[in-house]
Amino acid sequence: MSYTLTKRTDSEFDVVVESTIAALENEGFGVLCDIDVQKTLKEKLDEDFRSYRILGACNPQLAHQALGEEIELGALLPCNVIIYETDDGSVTVSAVDPEQLVGIADNPALDSVAVEVHERFERVLSAIEADGVN
Amino acid sequence: MSYTLTKRTDSEFDVVVESTIAALENEGFGVLCDIDVQKTLKEKLDEDFRSYRILGACNPQLAHQALGEEIELGALLPCNVIIYETDDGSVTVSAVDPEQLVGIADNPALDSVAVEVHERFERVLSAIEADGVN
Repeated sequence: MSYTLTKRTDSEFDVVVESTIAALENEGFGVLCDIDVQKTLKEKLDEDFRSYRILGACNPQLAHQALGEEIELGALLPCNVIIYETDDGSVTVSAVDPEQLVGIADNPALDSVAVEVHERFERVLSAIEADGVN
Repeated sequence: MSYTLTKRTDSEFDVVVESTIAALENEGFGVLCDIDVQKTLKEKLDEDFRSYRILGACNPQLAHQALGEEIELGALLPCNVIIYETDDGSVTVSAVDPEQLVGIADNPALDSVAVEVHERFERVLSAIEADGVN
């Protein structure tokens, strides 16, 4: 079973990053963390790597609710959306499946939040699709 | 089964944050992401919350190796170490258990990296303990 929700697009990498961030904002997620994997691996290891970004997405209300149920949950947050160049030259956008991620905590009180995030991530990916891709 | 490796200390919160970052650096982890949960919830929701930081820790060599095995793994990275005020006034440091986190991917090629990160996180927590806490 895959642990991500995925879309593939033929748009330019930087355009996809910007439209993903905008789609996340429309669903109430701020990007609290933005890791440029390609840049980091070049700087730290002098390795050439494909374009690859990790966006840590957080909806403050849902995060607050979830941390109220389980204080350790921050170890699994924020929920990531990754964007990378695929081998065929297209761009892949993958959001972590929040139900699988939060499932590690094995706390039924978190189920409704995980479902809510899942639904919002589905809409984020649909919005990217609607931009003329996939 | 817990999904974190945990230590508790009576040191000051800010001191614990600094010594955790130093201990991570000693084990080859850079902090690529540093989320101040208390500040974020105050700014976004005007909610008062305990001191709580989420540090996203990345060892470039291990991350590069893991992404070479599984390109989607960035959806689960970096591995977080959280630091928060505990209800009794002490401070808790919890690292996500990398074997459980990476276990979501269900890819045996990642097992050795997960074990390596686990061992390093154990040493990070031991180093905090050696600072006169727990």
